[in-house]
Amino acid sequence: MKVAYQGEQGAYSEAALYGYFGDGVQAIPCENFELVFDMVDAGNCDAGMIPIDNSVAGSIHRNYDLLLEHTLFITAEYTLRVRHCMIAIPGTSLKEIKKVISHPQALAQCRHFLNTHPEIKIEAVYDTAGSIKMVKERQDRSTAGIASARAAEVYGMSILASGIEDNQENYTRFLVIAKDPVKPSGEAKTSIVFSFEDHPGSLFKALSVFALRDINLTKIESRPLVGRLWEYYFYIDLVGCVEDQKVGKALDHLGEFATMLRILGSYPRHRLEAEEGTGE
Amino acid sequence: MKVAYQGEQGAYSEAALYGYFGDGVQAIPCENFELVFDMVDAGNCDAGMIPIDNSVAGSIHRNYDLLLEHTLFITAEYTLRVRHCMIAIPGTSLKEIKKVISHPQALAQCRHFLNTHPEIKIEAVYDTAGSIKMVKERQDRSTAGIASARAAEVYGMSILASGIEDNQENYTRFLVIAKDPVKPSGEAKTSIVFSFEDHPGSLFKALSVFALRDINLTKIESRPLVGRLWEYYFYIDLVGCVEDQKVGKALDHLGEFATMLRILGSYPRHRLEAEEGTGE
Repeated sequence: MKVAYQGEQGAYSEAALYGYFGDGVQAIPCENFELVFDMVDAGNCDAGMIPIDNSVAGSIHRNYDLLLEHTLFITAEYTLRVRHCMIAIPGTSLKEIKKVISHPQALAQCRHFLNTHPEIKIEAVYDTAGSIKMVKERQDRSTAGIASARAAEVYGMSILASGIEDNQENYTRFLVIAKDPVKPSGEAKTSIVFSFEDHPGSLFKALSVFALRDINLTKIESRPLVGRLWEYYFYIDLVGCVEDQKVGKALDHLGEFATMLRILGSYPRHRLEAEEGTGE
Repeated sequence: MKVAYQGEQGAYSEAALYGYFGDGVQAIPCENFELVFDMVDAGNCDAGMIPIDNSVAGSIHRNYDLLLEHTLFITAEYTLRVRHCMIAIPGTSLKEIKKVISHPQALAQCRHFLNTHPEIKIEAVYDTAGSIKMVKERQDRSTAGIASARAAEVYGMSILASGIEDNQENYTRFLVIAKDPVKPSGEAKTSIVFSFEDHPGSLFKALSVFALRDINLTKIESRPLVGRLWEYYFYIDLVGCVEDQKVGKALDHLGEFATMLRILGSYPRHRLEAEEGTGE
């Protein structure tokens, strides 16, 4: 089985992919998110693993747009704890480091740690794991990257500091995308996207089809409806499966007044131990 | 009067600033959005002009977060039509261009035009107006930038193609931020941010305080509530002023169950001719 992901070897998406599918699958690195979707679309990969939401930085909006542009289905979700490490050439000490490079989000998430080292210059690059690859290729002892412990392992580099993220509740939720939908057994979630005529109270009306049936929503996200000034698509994640009678009725009800409604997929809910207490 | 904005001279934010305040003000360029907020906070500038939403690319999420981190007020909104131009050294023709540089969003918004020139390499840089400054400084005849017509004027450069954005409905909505709130006369909008205990139907309940009073919402945006896994702050723009009785009652009602509620400001509504027809 081949699974596409965005980034270099050692990326968090690759860790999510092995975490969900196990070590037996073949991980196919792609330069950007578009390519991940294209690989699955074209049948070159059986699935793709894409990040959709980070508990500190927010949604990965480009992937919401790509879900709409393509006709793939969401078949699973997987949540990964993000633990950033400062990584350098083996034998280097923290005192030798003059510059740190990483993806802008990772740099922003380690602000407290970096503030305690004002002598270290900060520079944004395109990728977390890619920053480690760059330091290795340049054999630059004065530069460190920020990425996962796995990235240090993949590139044979040393960890100077670990768990350097400001917030310990740093999780990324990933989605598995594939050509065919699945029928989850057990606790399920369903993702949908819809739009409606822009009248006062429209969103309230849309949410009422779920609230009046006691269907829990875990996420709502809006994205611009291009070509209709200040109108939006709404993406909703709800607890339940399209096969459940009350979810089916709610979606029929929403369909009565939505101008567009697409079911992106029902899939097994992934609950981390850390999530159990949130009382959703 | 001094007004801070993010970007180089010739940036869209600078155009919004002159469009709103007139040519008599002093525009103070800042390297990043944090600095715009800091300049107003510290009293070094009387106001700041920040982009908050683009009709094609979506919200500028960093500025939502900064509104919450600071205690400034929104005192105005201003909407600007975004018209991208391809800009190069005077005397250059489109055929000589081998590479185009600009902010990733501007490049993404000109995809159709760029696809008709597959011979031109695309490279992302930090800023639209900054890309024109770079081309000028390097005196590089084989590279063009993408920015506003104003940026071409500011740097004494030539426009090779104009109106090259894919979508003609490309508008950016800006906010004016200042230390003190204003009392708008005439049609007003109000921006608020709130959070609530994560129970089923909480968002529906929050929206009901407006829907049941026929208060129109023009925008809803969510951002992660850092430290509370998969909980969110909600930002809402509504039509009306905090001084209006029904808006006041709705906000009191929301305050009864919100765990946090802040009024970011009431300000005059800016309607473009293009917006009149959207039936909000």
